[in-house]
Amino acid sequence: MPRIAFLECSRCKTRVSAETPQTLCPACAGSLYVRYDMDTLKRTARRDDIAAKAAASPASLGMWRYADVLPDVAPVTLGEGWTPMIHSRRYPGLYIKEEGANPTGTFKARGLSLAVTMAKHYGLQHLAVPSAGNAAGALAAYAAAAGLSAHIFMPQDVPFANYLEGIVYGADVNMIDGLISDCARIVGEKIKAQKEANTPTSEVWFDISTLKEPFRVEGKKTMGYELVEQLGWTYPDAVFYPTGGGVGLIGMWKAFEEMEALGWVTGKRPRMYALQATGCAPVARAFDEHKPASEFFQNAATFAAGLRVPKPYGDYIILDILEKSGGKAIASPDEVILESILDYARHEGIFLSPEGAAATAAYDQLLKTGELKPTDKVVLFNTGAGLKYTDMTAEAMHLRRPNEKKATLPTSLPVGGIITPQ
Amino acid sequence: MPRIAFLECSRCKTRVSAETPQTLCPACAGSLYVRYDMDTLKRTARRDDIAAKAAASPASLGMWRYADVLPDVAPVTLGEGWTPMIHSRRYPGLYIKEEGANPTGTFKARGLSLAVTMAKHYGLQHLAVPSAGNAAGALAAYAAAAGLSAHIFMPQDVPFANYLEGIVYGADVNMIDGLISDCARIVGEKIKAQKEANTPTSEVWFDISTLKEPFRVEGKKTMGYELVEQLGWTYPDAVFYPTGGGVGLIGMWKAFEEMEALGWVTGKRPRMYALQATGCAPVARAFDEHKPASEFFQNAATFAAGLRVPKPYGDYIILDILEKSGGKAIASPDEVILESILDYARHEGIFLSPEGAAATAAYDQLLKTGELKPTDKVVLFNTGAGLKYTDMTAEAMHLRRPNEKKATLPTSLPVGGIITPQ
Repeated sequence: MPRIAFLECSRCKTRVSAETPQTLCPACAGSLYVRYDMDTLKRTARRDDIAAKAAASPASLGMWRYADVLPDVAPVTLGEGWTPMIHSRRYPGLYIKEEGANPTGTFKARGLSLAVTMAKHYGLQHLAVPSAGNAAGALAAYAAAAGLSAHIFMPQDVPFANYLEGIVYGADVNMIDGLISDCARIVGEKIKAQKEANTPTSEVWFDISTLKEPFRVEGKKTMGYELVEQLGWTYPDAVFYPTGGGVGLIGMWKAFEEMEALGWVTGKRPRMYALQATGCAPVARAFDEHKPASEFFQNAATFAAGLRVPKPYGDYIILDILEKSGGKAIASPDEVILESILDYARHEGIFLSPEGAAATAAYDQLLKTGELKPTDKVVLFNTGAGLKYTDMTAEAMHLRRPNEKKATLPTSLPVGGIITPQ
Repeated sequence: MPRIAFLECSRCKTRVSAETPQTLCPACAGSLYVRYDMDTLKRTARRDDIAAKAAASPASLGMWRYADVLPDVAPVTLGEGWTPMIHSRRYPGLYIKEEGANPTGTFKARGLSLAVTMAKHYGLQHLAVPSAGNAAGALAAYAAAAGLSAHIFMPQDVPFANYLEGIVYGADVNMIDGLISDCARIVGEKIKAQKEANTPTSEVWFDISTLKEPFRVEGKKTMGYELVEQLGWTYPDAVFYPTGGGVGLIGMWKAFEEMEALGWVTGKRPRMYALQATGCAPVARAFDEHKPASEFFQNAATFAAGLRVPKPYGDYIILDILEKSGGKAIASPDEVILESILDYARHEGIFLSPEGAAATAAYDQLLKTGELKPTDKVVLFNTGAGLKYTDMTAEAMHLRRPNEKKATLPTSLPVGGIITPQ
């Protein structure tokens, strides 16, 4: 793997080799970043070649257009990335980055495309993930594409689409009576037990949790490259990012650092805003209290399922970026988030996920207080397709279909027992 | 509108002006095509400038990268088009064109982006559409983006997502106890009644049905440009296209004709395959019986909701293209379609719509008979995201979520009566 120079701890700067699979920093358990030899990259990676090269190859239509600044490994791709950037009809400075256009309907595809690519490269067989729902679906898809086994753990009250995609992609689906934090604990315990039982190495699960391995954040960084390229290689004034685990925000900041080193962009970096729901707002609370890390958020509850992360592993990185960039963290109540879904659907033609609408709700609030002007250039991430949340959104709206009648369906199904979840 | 030269009847070649809104050929009721002055286009539209120009502007990231060969009007865009082309893991010649990445999750976005763009240009206020489901959702979204009113008519047993998106985008939603053919009849009757009642022109609905106005097919033609550009400006051996109304197939054939005139592509055009479900197969039946048009398919029933079109308006064009190209029409049973959904999910990582799986089912069948080789270069369209059919796919699989528990949702909803459908 010539292009990766080493992995580096985000906290204590310890360096680790990328020749074998790595999880956390062996010294301090911080998250690891992929580092390249920037002098080589400056010679080999050329910004102005990207568009033409990307159009010439099906495998480069999406985020792999940035292959020059990603690990030099054959990609496991389903066409993720290079998503639309929709100019608002009402606010001249607002652009909505539509991550719902990704495979499996969310931004999670970027991180898992790269993480599964690397897992395959390393020869790993069994990948496990605790998830608020969408990462599970994405892992199931990419593992299927790579011919690996996916073990997914998610709360039993995730949107139905998350359950269905796990089943359809043939993953080992585990529905947990709890939150993503409970799922993470269970995955950790299972792997520990496998190791203690001297399970053959090829059968031990690899924990592909957010920020507990270096490549999901590396995939997510492509959102930073994209928003800058799509704005003509310039920075916006601000980036609005719905923050559950916060990996996208961390990845974008890493991208900005790399792009500046490569001379691909100059000027002031955008203010970074982390948006949450009032029912689960550990980062917003820590930001308001000027703390360097978050505390576990008790009784997390919000219909923005992706934001139900009571304590993000990378909280210390997120809070550092918010402060350095001059941004902030804001939490909105579910009622306001739902209103924002309907507002943007009816006036912009965009059906936001509840997470995306946590960002628009905060954007609208800052317009009202005057902290933000409609002409300020803002890139706001809709991290998932509203269509992935049909059940929860309809229920939140107390909506029933009139004259419901079941469609005619196949009478017999030849798939048998394989659809029974574990 | 300098770029459009005139509209031309697909059947009798009668020419009509594009200065005012047009529906069908005034002489023979055939569908109208947009025609340009090709000599001018040859001078102004340059194939090799497209990629760089597209990357430089958010509005050109999608199908509007082909603005040079589209009407010269400010687009109503939500980022439709320029969708992934996923190389199969199992069949070296197979590429899956993932139209589920479009806004509203289906290929319908392309046609309705252009049709709503033109409707806005003409100053139309009220747009009506009979739909098998997905065109209704797309019209609702683009009408919302353009500030126009959408009146949508669809069977009451469409996938729930189709109903929800109509409501969320604020359309006038009408759920009909019948098929798309009944919806079409009702829309026609309502418009006739409006005219007879001397309703003010601005309040009379405009029927934006497939092939009953010239611009939906013009938007769909971008699929033809895209697949050729994404294959390095070459033709594949065959194109597999799930065919309900068949507008995409018709649009692609038009694109091939234009691209050849512009010198953008040479060589033998692909064989065109129209794929249907056994439960609603008017085109396959007409093809087998060597008829120039289809007959109304009685008791249409299939869980591939988008294929429940008992008599496509453009059947005569579709059948002509199939024959000229050396392709054919094939229908598959729902059980086989469902098996194909699971097969491609588990082995390719792609969650197909039932319509897309009608195409993969036929592809697999032709591999088995030897009529097709795995190395033949085939572009196969997945016309919609599998996630848009969660309810119907789950029901077809007899799938229930274990330990179902409702998520915590907002307790009060401030949107009131506006969510009640008409």
